[in-house]
Order: sequence, then structure tokens, then C-alpha cells
Amino acid sequence: MIQFKKPDVENFYRTFNIQTFTVSPDENQLVFSTNLSGKYNLWAMDLPNQYPYPLTFIDQTCQALRYSNEGKFLVVGFDQDGDENGQLYALLPKGGKLEPLRFAEKERHMHPLLSKDDKRLYYTSTKGNPTFLNIYRYDIENDVENIVVEGEGAACFLVAVDEDENHFAYIKQYANTYAPGFIFQNGRSYSLTPETNEQFTVGEGVFVGNEYYFVTTFGEDFDYLAKYNLDTHEFTKVLSIDKEEFSAIRFDKSSNCLYFVTSRGVEDHLYKYNLTSGSYNNLNLPASIIQGGTVAKSGNVYVLAGSATKPNNIFKMDAHSGEWMQLTNLAVPGVNEQELVNPDVITYPSYDGLAMEALFFRAKEDVSNGHVILWPHGGPQAAERKFFRGMFQFLANRGYSIFAPNFRGSTGYGLAFTKMVEGNWGEGPRLDNIAGLEFLYEKGLADRNKTLLMGGSFGGYMALLLHGRHPEYFKAVVDIFGPSNLFSFIESVPEHWKPIMNQWVGDPIKDFDKLTEYSPITYLDTMTKPMLIIQGANDPRVVKQESDQIVKALQEKGRDVKYLVLEDEGHGFSKKENEILVNQTILEFFDQFVEIKVLAD
Amino acid sequence: MIQFKKPDVENFYRTFNIQTFTVSPDENQLVFSTNLSGKYNLWAMDLPNQYPYPLTFIDQTCQALRYSNEGKFLVVGFDQDGDENGQLYALLPKGGKLEPLRFAEKERHMHPLLSKDDKRLYYTSTKGNPTFLNIYRYDIENDVENIVVEGEGAACFLVAVDEDENHFAYIKQYANTYAPGFIFQNGRSYSLTPETNEQFTVGEGVFVGNEYYFVTTFGEDFDYLAKYNLDTHEFTKVLSIDKEEFSAIRFDKSSNCLYFVTSRGVEDHLYKYNLTSGSYNNLNLPASIIQGGTVAKSGNVYVLAGSATKPNNIFKMDAHSGEWMQLTNLAVPGVNEQELVNPDVITYPSYDGLAMEALFFRAKEDVSNGHVILWPHGGPQAAERKFFRGMFQFLANRGYSIFAPNFRGSTGYGLAFTKMVEGNWGEGPRLDNIAGLEFLYEKGLADRNKTLLMGGSFGGYMALLLHGRHPEYFKAVVDIFGPSNLFSFIESVPEHWKPIMNQWVGDPIKDFDKLTEYSPITYLDTMTKPMLIIQGANDPRVVKQESDQIVKALQEKGRDVKYLVLEDEGHGFSKKENEILVNQTILEFFDQFVEIKVLAD
Repeated sequence: MIQFKKPDVENFYRTFNIQTFTVSPDENQLVFSTNLSGKYNLWAMDLPNQYPYPLTFIDQTCQALRYSNEGKFLVVGFDQDGDENGQLYALLPKGGKLEPLRFAEKERHMHPLLSKDDKRLYYTSTKGNPTFLNIYRYDIENDVENIVVEGEGAACFLVAVDEDENHFAYIKQYANTYAPGFIFQNGRSYSLTPETNEQFTVGEGVFVGNEYYFVTTFGEDFDYLAKYNLDTHEFTKVLSIDKEEFSAIRFDKSSNCLYFVTSRGVEDHLYKYNLTSGSYNNLNLPASIIQGGTVAKSGNVYVLAGSATKPNNIFKMDAHSGEWMQLTNLAVPGVNEQELVNPDVITYPSYDGLAMEALFFRAKEDVSNGHVILWPHGGPQAAERKFFRGMFQFLANRGYSIFAPNFRGSTGYGLAFTKMVEGNWGEGPRLDNIAGLEFLYEKGLADRNKTLLMGGSFGGYMALLLHGRHPEYFKAVVDIFGPSNLFSFIESVPEHWKPIMNQWVGDPIKDFDKLTEYSPITYLDTMTKPMLIIQGANDPRVVKQESDQIVKALQEKGRDVKYLVLEDEGHGFSKKENEILVNQTILEFFDQFVEIKVLAD
Repeated sequence: MIQFKKPDVENFYRTFNIQTFTVSPDENQLVFSTNLSGKYNLWAMDLPNQYPYPLTFIDQTCQALRYSNEGKFLVVGFDQDGDENGQLYALLPKGGKLEPLRFAEKERHMHPLLSKDDKRLYYTSTKGNPTFLNIYRYDIENDVENIVVEGEGAACFLVAVDEDENHFAYIKQYANTYAPGFIFQNGRSYSLTPETNEQFTVGEGVFVGNEYYFVTTFGEDFDYLAKYNLDTHEFTKVLSIDKEEFSAIRFDKSSNCLYFVTSRGVEDHLYKYNLTSGSYNNLNLPASIIQGGTVAKSGNVYVLAGSATKPNNIFKMDAHSGEWMQLTNLAVPGVNEQELVNPDVITYPSYDGLAMEALFFRAKEDVSNGHVILWPHGGPQAAERKFFRGMFQFLANRGYSIFAPNFRGSTGYGLAFTKMVEGNWGEGPRLDNIAGLEFLYEKGLADRNKTLLMGGSFGGYMALLLHGRHPEYFKAVVDIFGPSNLFSFIESVPEHWKPIMNQWVGDPIKDFDKLTEYSPITYLDTMTKPMLIIQGANDPRVVKQESDQIVKALQEKGRDVKYLVLEDEGHGFSKKENEILVNQTILEFFDQFVEIKVLAD
């Protein structure tokens, strides 16, 4: 018979992604951002037909996407090659030319919301207030704009506007873990929560009649559902679920229900909460991680979701039957889902006894090369979860196992756990990573002499730091846009990040010794292992200088450092050709340190 | 309100195409070749989900595509960058690596057919017999090959194999209009038709029990349905339809019916013919031109079809309801179908009174620039029909009208009409084109001083010749891979074309004077208008030398000639970036000679 060869890494590189989506009010059109043609563009399908067609040819990732309420146009946001300066455009549902709605060079416009009649656009922008931001109202018909809320004290972000445009919900972000919420009405702002000296967060919210439902950690460790009465200004806790962090929330008028998403460690859950009865149930979405969603007027639910072994797809839940249907069909071409590696969830005690959760992608026996890659995730106030990473899957397919611990500072385990990284970048999280490796060695899950290291963003920082502090653990190190020097990093972040840097990272003067101790560049002498450093030239979060300076310093010391700069990318690799180049470069780099098993054809 | 700009030509350039398709035996998977990602690859959908996913990353047009009978693999053919040397591969339904089945450098393998058990592959190849071709049987399991029919006298092409693999239907192509058919059984060949001194053709066919149904022009002017009894060797005419040329034919065992396609001038019809009752009916496919089709075991019909205002899409007809459903959704992005130009069908008398049919794409009033482009089609034994041409639509959108006459020699109007171009390349068809222009001028449909000229292949030849013989008609001329010198053209065509050249074009010795008269290069002195010449470097039909020589000759005379060579293309432009380059170059070339109306935004 015909002997077919096993798929190679090319297939993994060719896996597509969907970033975000929106649905027309009549549910006849679904619009989404995907890299189906190699670069991100908006595509659409005319439901029930699921065959996609392109709406834009801008070749950029989508920063915002919202169908207008009357369905005549869409509001879309695009930046330029990863610079994150999202500009807002109008686009006809059939596609064609983007018509600038709000465009300002070097400014970023976020989270656009339309009035019910689609005549006014509300959004948050760096324009005129780069540090604390402003919330604007733009009258589309008359081309007149004014400020609704002027940010002060902390970066303010618009979250929701009520139908009558009299109430504006927004948050003030003093830190990732300290973001109180407010309602602006009749010219003044009211706190959504009672007074407290504790730090807490307010997240998403929806207006329901004279109440505002929102998620918060006010007074608790895990996000829960609360409400605020617009008339009485009364705050009430509504619902919490043990060990689950509430995140997204949507209102369905047709059934008087709220849909909400919770994070429980490495997975998401989707629930429906009946506002009339107070009961709720898990909707058993056939996916692990929810990236976005919307509820149509009909009550049908659309969700973008994926899992460790399946890229993001758009699912529809029929309002009447409750059945899920997958509208798109993204997968690793040529590879069955069962052939991919579904990670084990491991719990281990860290150096101080604190329990850590981690994902462990074990390469299958027949291909394993015995090497484990430690992957400290980015954020750091984020988490490695059961979402799809093509890179992990192709590395596992090539024989590498990947260990990704949710070290202290990660989200999904309560606010106190998340706060543990603050002012502690280089200590606790670093030792959590090391403790994780020691746990693997002890359990026979990894080989002390076959450990590699790779991370991006905070994970890149951590890779550099682990390399400098614990070089004996690692054969080779990959740093993807990681800060190398916390002093220069603090100086170079976007303006509206700066107010949070003191609490998050540290004060360059007061915390001079600590920031020196936590900065990877302090440990150049011990960074002796071969390195690959990757950077997007337009990255506004971790600027290219962060990579440039450590590459230069290490090369001056004669170290083996390969440096790859992507000219048309930012903090991530959005273009398929770049993604392939990065993946291929990483693979070739690691393969140097491994005896490759020859796969039988 | 928001003022949206009209879509520009970019949208037309970004229109995708589907080349060919196949359906799995269980109808759970549809596989098709499309340029969705910019270059042609195989994609699939898991029916009823219509969202496509890629199977190959070869970036080549598909020369053959056939699902195996048991559904375990596909047989696919790819050439390299337009060289038309199709190699045959096996591919798993989930995609992945192509496994070579029949590969031979510089040879072409055509029309693969699998035995019922998928263990033997039958196909036609240039291998070992470049002029007359051989029909091979390849035993896949044992990797053994032998010749079933050795071509002699004319190029032979396998058409069908019966289930028991005892009968092989093939044709011998002495000319495009002279191709008798045979059944090879028990070591000898039987003519499908009675003896005659007339030329005629045999086309597609299907085995049905002990009969072979096929289309032929034997004894008639228009193709009709006939059958041949494998036991008695008796030929019987079955069915003809006035003025319609039968072309494709499929057998549906589930209903004991034949499906067949007919060409009636510029349109196709699809019929179902009941073998039991002898009745037939038109299936009213919602498209003008059928590019391919298949009938599943269930009786469901799948068809690839398009129209002048709609690219090729795959349609499914439910066997029970008879309803058509469109599975794909290709269109011009951002442009409604009503905004495109649906051509008028015009009939005019030629110089000798013979009736000619033509398509006339009239630019809409608000954009028209008053210029008409004469488009002599390729072939020449082909026709300009109501299929989708993105180039026509974007030129019409930019204000150009296009006149495309089906001059003598075209197909769709009977065998006698088609034969009129044979040995008459430079005379009748040329005057038919001129008569068409005069008709337009007379009726006020075109302006004598605003006529442009463009054609490809035979149409490119005709553009060159019309330029040389009638320069006073044209402001500018585009030739796309047209033969410039019939003597060198006759020498340079693929080997298996050579036996037909005498009848089709002429004998270089006997017809020396005529071929000189018909060769564009004879008229260099009068080719004085600005020209654009476009050529694919790998073109095996009209080799690059045909364009090189006329470009060189004209440039030596100081003429205004722009020359565009596509290095990775053959007789057509398969890669989106090349297609865009060609379209943009043509548009910019023509725009020089036209006052462009400024479009209101």
C-alpha cells in the first residue's frame, strides 16, 4: 500500500488563528479577524453558509471589532505592524474601503462603543492625556467630539454605556490588581463599591435596567458578580463560585439572563445566570478557553474558544435547543487532534511550600528526545492555560516536552496570589520556576542534563534572569522580547503604563538595589549558555532597546548569541511568514543541543 | 453620515477562484483547489460544515483531483509553475505530505482513474511516447506498471475504464475537430462509431452495464449522446438537443440516470436524462457555465459553476428535493453582484454574411470612459462565454467596455463552425473581429477613435495580427502569450500537439505563403501603436521565444513596447501576486490612452 510520511512541522506552522469576531444584529453575517491568507484581515461568512470571504486587505491584526446596532456598518480598529496605536474606522458589511472614524498619529483608541442609534461613538484614547487617558464622545453625524471623562490619578478605561447614554461605567487602573470602578452620571463619578483601604479590581460590566452588573474582587480573593443600583447607589454582591475568577459578562434581554465566563486555573467555564430565579448552570462549551463572545437579540450565543489541542474556533449555541455548533473549522492541517499533546495539569510545592499549578506537555514516547523546555509565561499577571499554542505542539511533535508553571503572580488563583509578583519580579517567581524543575527531576519527569529554557515578554525576562542566576540548569536559552534591564524597561513602557510601574515592578530610586538584583543584565558574567534572542522592532511594551542592549553586552563578552529582529512586528508575531521564521529559528536553535531521533517514514 | 468610498480595483484583484473539486464517497468531505491564500492549494470542508481548511502547501495549480473509491486517499496531480508536466501523488484526506505515485521529470501524466478497489491506477502519459502518448496501468500495491494501449497515429487519451477493468474507452486526437473514439477490450480496439470518411469527434463517456454512453459529433454538426454496445459492438444515437453541444456526462446508478452538460453558445445547460423512461429535464442550475461536476452514490449532484458576474462556486443538488445549495461563497469582495457588468449577447453579420455571436460588457454610464476593448478569445477552438473574468469586471468598473466576439472557429456553434478556423488562422477570424467592430461603430455602441485591443494565446496572436493588418483601428494593443510567428510556433508546441498542427494551423512547407501571410511578424512595419506584451516564462504551449522575438524586432524598430515576463508562470497566471501585477500593468497601460473620469468618493 501507499506509505504516507508523517506530517512535519510545516503543518503546525500553517495552523490559522481567529483573533476576534462580531455578529450582525440579524445574525446573517459573522465577521472575524483571521490570518487565513497569511496575514490578519477581516473575513465574513453569510450565515448559515460558513464559507468565508475577505472584507479587508489591510494585513493587520484587529484591535477592535463591533457591528453597529442597526447593522449598517462596523467599527473596526487596526494598528500598524504591531505598534498598538489602534485607529478606528468604519467599514461596510460587504467590505471595501476603510473609512477613518477616529485617526490620530501615534495615539491609541480603545474599546469603541456605539450609541443605540449608531450616531455617537464612545471610546477611550491616549489623545490629549497620554498618561491617564480620556473617554470621548464623538458625534459621527456632525463630526463633533467632546470629553466625557477626563482621566486623572490613574489610566481610566470606558467599560460600558447605558442605552440612554446617561451612565458611563469606567475603571481607573492604579495597578493590574488595583482598579476600582465608577459610574459617571450627571457630571459626577460614583464609586461602584463601598469605601475600603484594600486594593481590589473591577472588570467587565453590563447595564440591566437601573442596575449595573459587574465583576469585582472587592473584599474577596476571587472575582465574583456584583451589582450597583444607579438610583440608590447601593452595592450588592450577587454571586461567587469557589476558586473561580469571574471575567467576561453579557446580558441577554430575551431571557433576562446573564452569561458569564470564569477562569478556574488553566481552564474557563461558561455559565448562564437567570436574573429572575437566581439559578445558574454550566453551558459545557466544547472548549477550554474562551477568547470572546456575544449574545444576539434572539438569545443565540456566539463564542470564540479553543483548547490546548485545538485552535480558536467560533461556536454558536442555539437559544432554544442549547446545542453547540462549530461555525469555523480551524485545526492543525494534516494532524488529527488525538495526535497532539494534551497537557497534564501538575501541582507541586514551591520553595516555601506554596502550591503551584503547571501545564506539562509531554512529548509522545515514540518521538521524545528527553529534553524539557521550561516556559515561564508572560504577563506576569496572566497565566499559561489550555489555549492552543502551535509552537508548543510542533515542539512536542519534534520530541520536546514543555513545562509551563503558573508561578506566583499568575492570574486564575485569586488576587492575593496574583499580587505576589508585585515588587518581587526577580525573587519568588524565579524560585517557583526552579522549584518546578526540581520537582520534575525528583519525579523522573525531566532530566537535569536535558533542560532548555524559553520565554516571551515577562517570560523572556525570566528566561534571561534564570540564565543569569541559574545557568547550571540550562543547555540553551531563548528570550523573546524580554526586558533585560528593569531600570530602562520602567522608562520605556507606554505612558499610560507608567503610573502602575511603582507598585508592579518597583521605584527606580527607592528600590534601586532590588531592581538591580532583579535585572538580568546584572548577571552577564554567568550568562554563558548559547542564546537566541527575538524581538519585534515596533514593540511598544518591551522596546527593541531591551533586546539590543543585552545582545550587545553578551556579544562583547564573546558569548554565543543569535539575534533575530522582525521589522514589521510588535509584541507578538502576527504575520504568518514571520511566525514561521520565528518557529523555524527556535526549532533549529534547540535542535543543535539535542540528538534528533530519525523518524521512520 | 459616514461617506464610504467606492471599492477600487484592488477588490477585483482579490477575487478568488476554484479550479476543480472532488467529494469523498461518504460525502463527508469536499476537496477543492483554490487560491484562497494567494496561491493555489488543495483545501477541504467537512460537510455539512463549509469552513475550509488547507490540505497542501505546494502553491501550485491542480492538474488532477480524484477521491479514491474507498475514500482512504486522493489521487492528485500538480505541475511546477505552469510547465504543465503534471505529476501524480497520493494524499491523505486529512492532508499532509504528498506521496509520489507516478513521477517522471519533464513528462506529463493525465486523467488518472482508479480501479474499484483503488489498487490499480490508469492514466495517460507522454512517458515513452511523447507524440502519441500511452495509456498505462500502474499496480500500486506491487509497484508494477504496464502499457494498456500504446498510442499510434494520433495522441491517444484514456476516457473511461469499466468496473471490471476489461474495457477501456479512449480517443485518438487527430485534430480538435477530428477525434474518433475506441473501446479496447481483449487485446484489440473497436471503433465506437461506424465507418465514415467525415471528420468528427468523440468526447466524454461512461460505462453503464454492457453499454458505453458517450458524446460525439459523428454524422452531425452538434455533439449529441450516443451509446455503444460492448457485446454487439452496435452504435446507437440516443439523444440530441437542437443547437446544443453535449459535453460532460455522468452516470447515477441510484436513479439509473445520466447527467449531462450542453453548451449553447455562451451558456451551459445541465440536464438529467432518465435511462429507463428516456425523458430528460433541465436542472436550472443557478449559474451560466459549468466547470466540473460529480454524482455521489447517494444521487446528490455536486457542480462547480459560475457566471459572468459570479466566480466559480461549488453547488450541491439534493437528490431528493432537487434543491440547489451553494457550498462555497466566492464573489468580488466589497462589490455586490448587481454592481458588476452582465454582458449583452450580440449577434452580428460578418463580412460574408455569416452570423457571429459576441459578448459585450458595457461599462456603466457613470463610469464609462467611452473606450471599447476588442477581446479576441484564445483557443481558437474555444469560446468567450459567460464565465467570470475578474479582468473584464475591473476594466468595466474602471470605465472600459469589452467586446468579445465568438468569431468563426469558436466552439458552441457546431462542428462546421469550429472547423472554419483550421488552416485559416489569419483570414476569416480576423475579418470577423473587424466586422464586429464595424457593427459596433454603426450601431453607436463604440467610437472608432476609442478602440483598444487585447487578447491572450490565440487572442494574443490575433491582437498582434490585427495590429499589423489594421493598425488604424486601435489606440493601443496588449498581447498576452500570443504566437508571433506561425513557423516557429508550429515547431515549439508540445510534442503531442504536433500531429494536429498540419490540419489546425498549416504545413510549413506546403502552406509556406499562407503561414507567412498569417504570421504577425510579417507586419512589423505597420505595428506602430503602443504595445504591452506579457508572457509566462514556463509556458509550454506558446513558448517565451514567441514573445521575445516580436518584442526584440519591434524594439529594434524603436517602437513603444513594454514587455512583462512572469518567471514562475506558464500559459496563464496562477499566483495572486502575479495576477495582480498583470492586471495592474494592463490597467496602467490602457489608462495612458484614456481621459480618466474622476470618481466621486
